[in-house]
Amino acid sequence: MPNTPHKKKRPKPWSGRFSEQTDPEVEAFTASLPFDRRLFRQDVEGSIAHAKALREIGLLTSKEADAILRGLIEIRLEMEREDPKSSIEDEDIHMHIERRLIEKIGDAGKKLHTGRSRNDQIATDIRLYLRGEMAEIQRAATGLQHALTAFARREFGTLLPGYTHLQRAQPILLAHLLLAHVEMLERDRGRMADAQRRMNVLPLGSGALAGSNFPIPRVRVARMLDFAGVSRNSIDAVSDRDFIVEFLSAAAILMMHLSRLAEEMILWSSAEFGFIELPDRFCTGSSMMPQKKNPDVLELVRGKTARVYGDLLSILVLLKGLPLSYNRDLQEDKEPLFDASDTVKASLSVLARLIGATRANRDRMARALDEGAMLATDLADGLVLRGVPFREAHAVVGQVVRYALQKGKPIERLSLSELRRFSPRFDRAALKGLSPERSVERKKTLGGTAPKRVWAEILAWEKRLEKELNTTPNKRYNDKV
Amino acid sequence: MPNTPHKKKRPKPWSGRFSEQTDPEVEAFTASLPFDRRLFRQDVEGSIAHAKALREIGLLTSKEADAILRGLIEIRLEMEREDPKSSIEDEDIHMHIERRLIEKIGDAGKKLHTGRSRNDQIATDIRLYLRGEMAEIQRAATGLQHALTAFARREFGTLLPGYTHLQRAQPILLAHLLLAHVEMLERDRGRMADAQRRMNVLPLGSGALAGSNFPIPRVRVARMLDFAGVSRNSIDAVSDRDFIVEFLSAAAILMMHLSRLAEEMILWSSAEFGFIELPDRFCTGSSMMPQKKNPDVLELVRGKTARVYGDLLSILVLLKGLPLSYNRDLQEDKEPLFDASDTVKASLSVLARLIGATRANRDRMARALDEGAMLATDLADGLVLRGVPFREAHAVVGQVVRYALQKGKPIERLSLSELRRFSPRFDRAALKGLSPERSVERKKTLGGTAPKRVWAEILAWEKRLEKELNTTPNKRYNDKV
Amino acid sequence: MPNTPHKKKRPKPWSGRFSEQTDPEVEAFTASLPFDRRLFRQDVEGSIAHAKALREIGLLTSKEADAILRGLIEIRLEMEREDPKSSIEDEDIHMHIERRLIEKIGDAGKKLHTGRSRNDQIATDIRLYLRGEMAEIQRAATGLQHALTAFARREFGTLLPGYTHLQRAQPILLAHLLLAHVEMLERDRGRMADAQRRMNVLPLGSGALAGSNFPIPRVRVARMLDFAGVSRNSIDAVSDRDFIVEFLSAAAILMMHLSRLAEEMILWSSAEFGFIELPDRFCTGSSMMPQKKNPDVLELVRGKTARVYGDLLSILVLLKGLPLSYNRDLQEDKEPLFDASDTVKASLSVLARLIGATRANRDRMARALDEGAMLATDLADGLVLRGVPFREAHAVVGQVVRYALQKGKPIERLSLSELRRFSPRFDRAALKGLSPERSVERKKTLGGTAPKRVWAEILAWEKRLEKELNTTPNKRYNDKV
Amino acid sequence: MPNTPHKKKRPKPWSGRFSEQTDPEVEAFTASLPFDRRLFRQDVEGSIAHAKALREIGLLTSKEADAILRGLIEIRLEMEREDPKSSIEDEDIHMHIERRLIEKIGDAGKKLHTGRSRNDQIATDIRLYLRGEMAEIQRAATGLQHALTAFARREFGTLLPGYTHLQRAQPILLAHLLLAHVEMLERDRGRMADAQRRMNVLPLGSGALAGSNFPIPRVRVARMLDFAGVSRNSIDAVSDRDFIVEFLSAAAILMMHLSRLAEEMILWSSAEFGFIELPDRFCTGSSMMPQKKNPDVLELVRGKTARVYGDLLSILVLLKGLPLSYNRDLQEDKEPLFDASDTVKASLSVLARLIGATRANRDRMARALDEGAMLATDLADGLVLRGVPFREAHAVVGQVVRYALQKGKPIERLSLSELRRFSPRFDRAALKGLSPERSVERKKTLGGTAPKRVWAEILAWEKRLEKELNTTPNKRYNDKV
Repeated sequence: MPNTPHKKKRPKPWSGRFSEQTDPEVEAFTASLPFDRRLFRQDVEGSIAHAKALREIGLLTSKEADAILRGLIEIRLEMEREDPKSSIEDEDIHMHIERRLIEKIGDAGKKLHTGRSRNDQIATDIRLYLRGEMAEIQRAATGLQHALTAFARREFGTLLPGYTHLQRAQPILLAHLLLAHVEMLERDRGRMADAQRRMNVLPLGSGALAGSNFPIPRVRVARMLDFAGVSRNSIDAVSDRDFIVEFLSAAAILMMHLSRLAEEMILWSSAEFGFIELPDRFCTGSSMMPQKKNPDVLELVRGKTARVYGDLLSILVLLKGLPLSYNRDLQEDKEPLFDASDTVKASLSVLARLIGATRANRDRMARALDEGAMLATDLADGLVLRGVPFREAHAVVGQVVRYALQKGKPIERLSLSELRRFSPRFDRAALKGLSPERSVERKKTLGGTAPKRVWAEILAWEKRLEKELNTTPNKRYNDKV
Repeated sequence: MPNTPHKKKRPKPWSGRFSEQTDPEVEAFTASLPFDRRLFRQDVEGSIAHAKALREIGLLTSKEADAILRGLIEIRLEMEREDPKSSIEDEDIHMHIERRLIEKIGDAGKKLHTGRSRNDQIATDIRLYLRGEMAEIQRAATGLQHALTAFARREFGTLLPGYTHLQRAQPILLAHLLLAHVEMLERDRGRMADAQRRMNVLPLGSGALAGSNFPIPRVRVARMLDFAGVSRNSIDAVSDRDFIVEFLSAAAILMMHLSRLAEEMILWSSAEFGFIELPDRFCTGSSMMPQKKNPDVLELVRGKTARVYGDLLSILVLLKGLPLSYNRDLQEDKEPLFDASDTVKASLSVLARLIGATRANRDRMARALDEGAMLATDLADGLVLRGVPFREAHAVVGQVVRYALQKGKPIERLSLSELRRFSPRFDRAALKGLSPERSVERKKTLGGTAPKRVWAEILAWEKRLEKELNTTPNKRYNDKV
Repeated sequence: MPNTPHKKKRPKPWSGRFSEQTDPEVEAFTASLPFDRRLFRQDVEGSIAHAKALREIGLLTSKEADAILRGLIEIRLEMEREDPKSSIEDEDIHMHIERRLIEKIGDAGKKLHTGRSRNDQIATDIRLYLRGEMAEIQRAATGLQHALTAFARREFGTLLPGYTHLQRAQPILLAHLLLAHVEMLERDRGRMADAQRRMNVLPLGSGALAGSNFPIPRVRVARMLDFAGVSRNSIDAVSDRDFIVEFLSAAAILMMHLSRLAEEMILWSSAEFGFIELPDRFCTGSSMMPQKKNPDVLELVRGKTARVYGDLLSILVLLKGLPLSYNRDLQEDKEPLFDASDTVKASLSVLARLIGATRANRDRMARALDEGAMLATDLADGLVLRGVPFREAHAVVGQVVRYALQKGKPIERLSLSELRRFSPRFDRAALKGLSPERSVERKKTLGGTAPKRVWAEILAWEKRLEKELNTTPNKRYNDKV
Repeated sequence: MPNTPHKKKRPKPWSGRFSEQTDPEVEAFTASLPFDRRLFRQDVEGSIAHAKALREIGLLTSKEADAILRGLIEIRLEMEREDPKSSIEDEDIHMHIERRLIEKIGDAGKKLHTGRSRNDQIATDIRLYLRGEMAEIQRAATGLQHALTAFARREFGTLLPGYTHLQRAQPILLAHLLLAHVEMLERDRGRMADAQRRMNVLPLGSGALAGSNFPIPRVRVARMLDFAGVSRNSIDAVSDRDFIVEFLSAAAILMMHLSRLAEEMILWSSAEFGFIELPDRFCTGSSMMPQKKNPDVLELVRGKTARVYGDLLSILVLLKGLPLSYNRDLQEDKEPLFDASDTVKASLSVLARLIGATRANRDRMARALDEGAMLATDLADGLVLRGVPFREAHAVVGQVVRYALQKGKPIERLSLSELRRFSPRFDRAALKGLSPERSVERKKTLGGTAPKRVWAEILAWEKRLEKELNTTPNKRYNDKV
């Protein structure tokens, strides 16, 4: 936050009723241009639509409107070229663009703000920006789903222990586990889509809070800006930041998902698990310890989750207890939004590439399956098929496990006679089915880890994702004139 | 959290492989029955469906299944009658019901847990519970929308200042402001509905994490329990708590909305605003100051928002970085959920009744309109219609305001000649339109505060809410056998 | 939250100016007795001091004061015996005790509230309660430090890999790692002590907000209640909840520490690490998988961290933007406080016992030291001693590590001639020092992992903790009359 | 977050064991230089002390050490002059400075990193930075206390209503209310000081996690850097971020305090309260409504509180469940810290100036005292002095209030005979004391609002603050060589 006082002569556009110039420290404290500059494309886009509307209702002549449109497009081009970190001389992006416009085209520029307020203008800008961001995030999430599905296909036959409580539980297909993350991302995409749909209504035309004194053709403006509808209440329209909170909630859940994936991969790339090998180009070293190769990307994805949680919290706290309609507190809505959106996009992208380059260490996974009595449930279920009530079968096999532990043998290598000490129902067939391969094959119900099931899921996802990725990205949501 | 050690002889159902009894302090620390007892109806409901499924695939005889169903219904009835704060002898609600069942019907009871795990069982229970809660919350939100709309109709003609930055900005209809809150609640209902739809898939049949060894007819079980589908990945099914986070996000936004409404009403019931009078029966007094009458309900609604934020945060933090699949951390998912759901329902309900009983103090509102130069924008817009570019008109009127402040007169009482010192474009007609009534009438665009617009919105809401309230509540989501 | 309306005839003690009875739903919504009942001892204690003060300034006769003291002590005894979950008929604990007192002793009871308000009363009650809780938490933290230090002594000679980025980094003493957690807890105790000291001032005598009309001898009351001083500003005294936030911050950091310890122990008890074995009595099993033995206590400690974070957030959000002085929102300050305090105490206690019973698996730790080139830094530092600039030495050893990885050999088993391919400065002595034991011995600076250093730390901690535990617990902070 | 891939040829200083160059997207994702550049002074300061230590133990010759010191000072000077937003070519500030140093002075520069790691280096840098920030914050808080106290003196005689529940409660001195905020800030300063003291220990010399192989004279290094001690456990030293959380907790509480002050002033500057007038230079206007003058600074201070809460939360979430010792997640610790520190400093500073320029509107305050039965407690206390038990007196006066409301008269204008309808104990003297002035005078106990008390507090604060401000700022904590 730049708070060094700086000289500023130019009077504020709203200063008519003021008897003093704004204090420089106050200017620095309240300035939003350093961050809302990022919305310049959206601000121009909205202003173009507004200018066309003003022309339509006769508040601008064609000539004036043309000058405005030309001026705005020029300003956009200039801003695209200019260093985003330069000057902070204006209060905010709206005043900045209006000032430049007036400098360029003169009096016509002074008419652009007719019938609107920064309150409905910023609400429009953020919606334009955010729906574009959400489209990008959805595409990036699809990209990660794609990388996970490709990994699942590459490692289709690979088994590893499934864990509960970080204790080995039952054998599963690696592909099955990877597809669990694909499912999680699918819900994320759904939440983003719902949020996008709910927010896609136009606030412009709501004025400062009460509506406009001029007959702005709001429905037509909405159409120009690809909004599906218009807000129905002007006070709500300028007070509402639900769409930011809803986006940030969806972003927080998405990052939570990535943090779980990252955690698993950090565990897997430890010497103790050794289940995967990350490529050198995705790792970094130590300034002191020459042997180190660290999974920094994964750790940072996990860490950055905290940052997005902080962003969500900020905006919720910001809004609590604010009376309607606009309050300046709302200016603090943008930085969390930008930060979260950047973080989510970067995390999805880098993870997708990392996953694409990760190799499973099948030997280590296979070796891990040999220990841990992971077939105990299968053994118990075998007794069930032989008529033992499950709760009893569980107790019997529990004792078998305890015995095997004491003997230091895996349960699948106990002899039949050893087993029969615990229940006479054990027979040779029960023992025969005790292999990780047979165990996964048995999990045939919908959603189970049986290879046939998992293969069908891979195919289904590939088809769905293919379609998703081939869909022309929703260009309507991007900036344009 | 009860952590007094207590004697416990009964062995745990999973204790076969254990060589020691659980430590009593550990039992107290890990017990969830004190809070998950609340899920007993859902647990019974899920178990009934599971038992029917087991019968279908031959793992239970008809007789066994009948005994189980009868036993479960009895247990449910008993638990409905018993004091919810009694005994905590079992680990959790699942073990509690299984134990009672076995005590009641013997060996058949030991078969109920065949082919399932507490992991898929609890995931099912919470979904059953939560979708019911969300249905109730939607109804309660509709109730509050209804109360607000009725208030809007009662006070249809009433004007008051609209505020930005808590400074008087422009005249608005009170009804318009009330409908802003109705809009906010409508988005809340939408979010709840989306979350409900996304979560309405059955996890049961996913086992501990890998699926089930038995051919559980999952699609039929889903139908019995009114789920729209089944989960497609067993690992995801037992690891996923997205639906809780998504619910809590929606709940947090909803409470944020209520806090804004509460804040406004607290302001309005202050002596300084004096815009409303709350009925005595909705207020409380002071133990010390005999004159006090405090808007406690509103303050508590505002305060309870913080609690729901805390609930949301808890669950997000809980899930961050957890490797798949089930981890015991997940046990901590329920209390925030219960707390938030209770809080939201109670807040919506009490607010609806309070709003229903609140009277507007029209005199105070009218008097507040007389001050504050709230018609300055109308004056500027008048100049615009006379050809002055808006930015200039704004500057001119700014100077008028400053002059009026110095003179201590409202701008609408300045003479034409006084106005003309600032711009020759001012004419008699411009002055004539300067009244709060005319100001609101001019805001005729969609979403504006013009009485005609607002009246149409009241009618539209009444129709929509009527329909909503008359819809048979979605009984399918309630407990039943 | 109980929100079933219930009949209530008894008029409120503050109802003089009210023309209606409180609505039953409002009563249920606003009642705090279900949770603030927990403060009954503190409320009685404060009231006793207040009664003595009133006697001193002549507002109570000796006889009245005696009756009040007797009555209060009786009430306390009764409440100690009664079921804490019973009746919620009164508004809060203060009104409850006042009503019982009047029922017991008649008119004298009606004089107890002279010169005070519930605002200064509750501020006093919470401080009394919280300083006691903080004393208990400090003792419990000392208990865990003690358990960790004892573990460090038991395993004094044991080495294991130290990790950064969950990658093996350098050999360390297990005892050294355990003492890191002791250090963390020491800072926790310091924060609790600071908070305790800062909060230990008496608010009673501040009235509703402006002070008291009667000459309450506040300094003497403070002394009776073992407060170190009195609040200097009555408005601040009734508005301030800093002490709760400060406590919750300290509690959140403490839980964060426990979550890190829990995480490490969860990792260590996985099959892959296998560094420790938890006793059966501290673990639980699976309802489905007979072999499972899960570190539930550790997972719950990690999970409960989220809950305390939520508590901290709640109270911060609650207080934001509240105008002075008392607002009813503040009623929501108690549940987060109680929840966090209970959670912290239970977590510290159960962890201390679990640590006391945990055994290190020295073989697995030793085996883990054999792999991973953990001596690479030692090798590089050897070159430094032979005149090679560190940055170069690091690069050389990096190449050695890469070579060793390709050869599949640990670096300590490379031959001298192999090493010399990378630098002529390598000599026999450099290789000789390459063992985990020598590596830790070399870390002799203050804070290093050298056995001599660590042993000295163990002794120092034992001495300090011994003293701490033998100190008569600060009885002054406990309830008494 | 810059995530555009960029070409980079220069090999990493740790790349010896790596077979691939870092992926450019990974470089962008993991780079911290864009934000940790801010620590360059501290990094240089720490390196200078480290170089001196290396010279002392013979690992650097005097000539080498001199070259390093000279080089480091040059780099610092260069960085002070250079645009902070320039190049991001290096990984982080440490590698950046080391590279520049080597470029400047050659081989000697390669020796600087001997015996240290970035893990202990960054822990040192942040502590150096943060203790300086905390000193500045303490000074800025003192500045605001000073402005509040000066305001209290300027308005010493001014009375206004004190509020509870935003309802008028009792008359108070404005000065008394202002001093409540001074008290709050005093606790903030205390918390900062405690945190500063607790964090002021040197981590340098802890190496990556195990300590150093070389006999770094840590105590002497600590003295050079003005640390009060050295860390006692190397693992803790590199894992610990408590000091950041503790700082952020203190910062969050401080901002909460400012938000309460801001809220009050926003209320007071509303037309409805009208208690203060903010100078034009501290307000901003509306782009649309010419009459608007908004208290933006106060709203932003309130809003920015949310941001600091988010920062606190981020770091707590970040640290939860991280195994010791260093994990890359920790890189995310800096931005919340910088953001919070900047926000707190700017908010304190701008508020102090705003308060210094704010004028109380004594007329409006006086008028507000005339309404609202704020003397009811005094009336009841009068009855108490006449022997009526307080609870009865309260009930009697409650009825008086109700009667007065119905009659539309202030209670102080009821006649004695009217009063006596409610209690025969009322007498002329009781009525005579019923004025706001007499009411505040009666609140004479310590902490009460009686003018004599408040005046003494003003004098005491002035003395204390004077001393504070005259104390030479703790130069030892600032950067130096």
